[in-house]
Amino acid sequence: MTKSLDVVAIGNAIVDVIARCDDAFLSAQNIDKGAMTLIDADRAESLYAAMGPGVEVSGGSAGNTIAGLAALGGRGGYIGKVRDDELGKVFRHDITAQGVRFETASAIDGPPTARCLVLVTPDAQRSMNTYLGACVNLTPNDVPRDLIEAAQVVYLEGYLFDPPEAKKAFVEAARLAHASGGKVALSLSDPFCVDRHRAAFQELVTHHIDILFANEDEIISLFEVKRFDDALQKIRFEVETAALTRSERGAVVVHRDEVHVLDAEPVETVVDTTGAGDLYAAGFLHGYTRGDDAVACGRLGAIAAAEVIGHVGARPEADLKALVAKRLS
Amino acid sequence: MTKSLDVVAIGNAIVDVIARCDDAFLSAQNIDKGAMTLIDADRAESLYAAMGPGVEVSGGSAGNTIAGLAALGGRGGYIGKVRDDELGKVFRHDITAQGVRFETASAIDGPPTARCLVLVTPDAQRSMNTYLGACVNLTPNDVPRDLIEAAQVVYLEGYLFDPPEAKKAFVEAARLAHASGGKVALSLSDPFCVDRHRAAFQELVTHHIDILFANEDEIISLFEVKRFDDALQKIRFEVETAALTRSERGAVVVHRDEVHVLDAEPVETVVDTTGAGDLYAAGFLHGYTRGDDAVACGRLGAIAAAEVIGHVGARPEADLKALVAKRLS
Repeated sequence: MTKSLDVVAIGNAIVDVIARCDDAFLSAQNIDKGAMTLIDADRAESLYAAMGPGVEVSGGSAGNTIAGLAALGGRGGYIGKVRDDELGKVFRHDITAQGVRFETASAIDGPPTARCLVLVTPDAQRSMNTYLGACVNLTPNDVPRDLIEAAQVVYLEGYLFDPPEAKKAFVEAARLAHASGGKVALSLSDPFCVDRHRAAFQELVTHHIDILFANEDEIISLFEVKRFDDALQKIRFEVETAALTRSERGAVVVHRDEVHVLDAEPVETVVDTTGAGDLYAAGFLHGYTRGDDAVACGRLGAIAAAEVIGHVGARPEADLKALVAKRLS
Repeated sequence: MTKSLDVVAIGNAIVDVIARCDDAFLSAQNIDKGAMTLIDADRAESLYAAMGPGVEVSGGSAGNTIAGLAALGGRGGYIGKVRDDELGKVFRHDITAQGVRFETASAIDGPPTARCLVLVTPDAQRSMNTYLGACVNLTPNDVPRDLIEAAQVVYLEGYLFDPPEAKKAFVEAARLAHASGGKVALSLSDPFCVDRHRAAFQELVTHHIDILFANEDEIISLFEVKRFDDALQKIRFEVETAALTRSERGAVVVHRDEVHVLDAEPVETVVDTTGAGDLYAAGFLHGYTRGDDAVACGRLGAIAAAEVIGHVGARPEADLKALVAKRLS
């Protein structure tokens, strides 16, 4: 069966509000540095009031990944829930303007479009505070069978396990993908997210996931082990393909019997690490869906990740296609 | 009389939506490269639909200036009209988070918060398309006497001449400023804006303005002369202080009998020229209100302008105070 799309991603549709701050601000606000913390509407308001001036950029983990895939020339679709408000229009504009097929209906009532208050410290580390807003209204009804069946890979972000109905949408999408001969990819998203849903993630990884993306902290958390290598030995026999990222130490890519230890790409100045993992997945999946080998997939992931950490925001700014052509020449 | 504020700025309160494009896109959309074009709601919608993915940052010429002044450590106030919508909240948050006093009530009906669709070409030139939205509802009633009287300098952007009621607010603010012993500063904003309102600007400059900011094209347009030097000879006898900026050729600062020809600051990579003039005015006025001489004011202006053209968006990103300290050491 011919697939008209390379990847369909499902995620929490979020607009990032990015501001710089110092470490003292994180302490004063009791923010876990480097983590993603879920916050309610009141906390979102009080934290926003305390934050410095911001920049608004469309975000959402899987949204960033599919935007990156499209920027690389891949054919992408997206499923996620915004409201029919100004930030919802911004999200919809940005992802469709990138060439991604995005047809999920906007909610016409209920909470506003989700936002993530991203605080970037001088060491370029990002601490995220997410108000899920309209994302809690994503349900299995928002997963169109034809869209899933059209995709070579259905990509799911682990963060979807936080809103309960979205988790059901996630499971339904995985089922439809496999039934139509597609692969199912998962990003573990965040070590705290893994903590919140460990048993469910373990079951999912063992039985339903073909391609797993995780960073070192996440894969260690998933298996509750002490060392990266312990997690590596476990994951090898759980999924067909795994890309385990380790920041400046590069990544380990496992594919069937192969194990590759790959270096990170050079970055001039790390400005904001938001989206590094998302863009790694974008590059990797673009290579994967066009039939590249595991090493080439990893290289593409590393190049895309290096671009996004060189500027503020988690969507690619440079002409990614041209950048890849230059780096690979 | 002691003044509790250094500068109060009045302007069109706008959120910028910034996207990259190529020259072919500008041609296809009939956009005057480098200019600020006023657009209506329908055009704003169709142009936004055609644009690539964007980044939202608070803007507005005078808003950028007063945010820059506050970032430098100056005491600033702002008058401008947003609506009580999401972008209005973003504008209010960003300017107050920068430490600027902003008390103008949000409109509770009428058009939405103004937005400027900024298209940045690979040469870093910006072409602006402004939908004035709620700005047309700024009236003389929005100019609080106590705020104007509290300021050493009242700073007005020429763009205010586009919405007719805002122009009245502008004239009222200038009158109150002079009556309380303050200075009145004006930025000519844009050569096309000068074309639209030349006679009014000439009258204003001759009779009511103490400090004039203009770039080369604007000052040439104001006096309808051919060469920069012709304009320079005219402006010398019209205002007490004039700062005439010439991009990479630096600036000419006129103050009473003095005429200074100052170099531009070095910039590593020019990314987006949006806000260069606004931040020049910020630096200059910060120096002016703390009693620096004309040369020092010009240097501060050039440093602030150099920072803002090194990144996307017209509000300062770096710690401007620290940057100035480093550059001047």
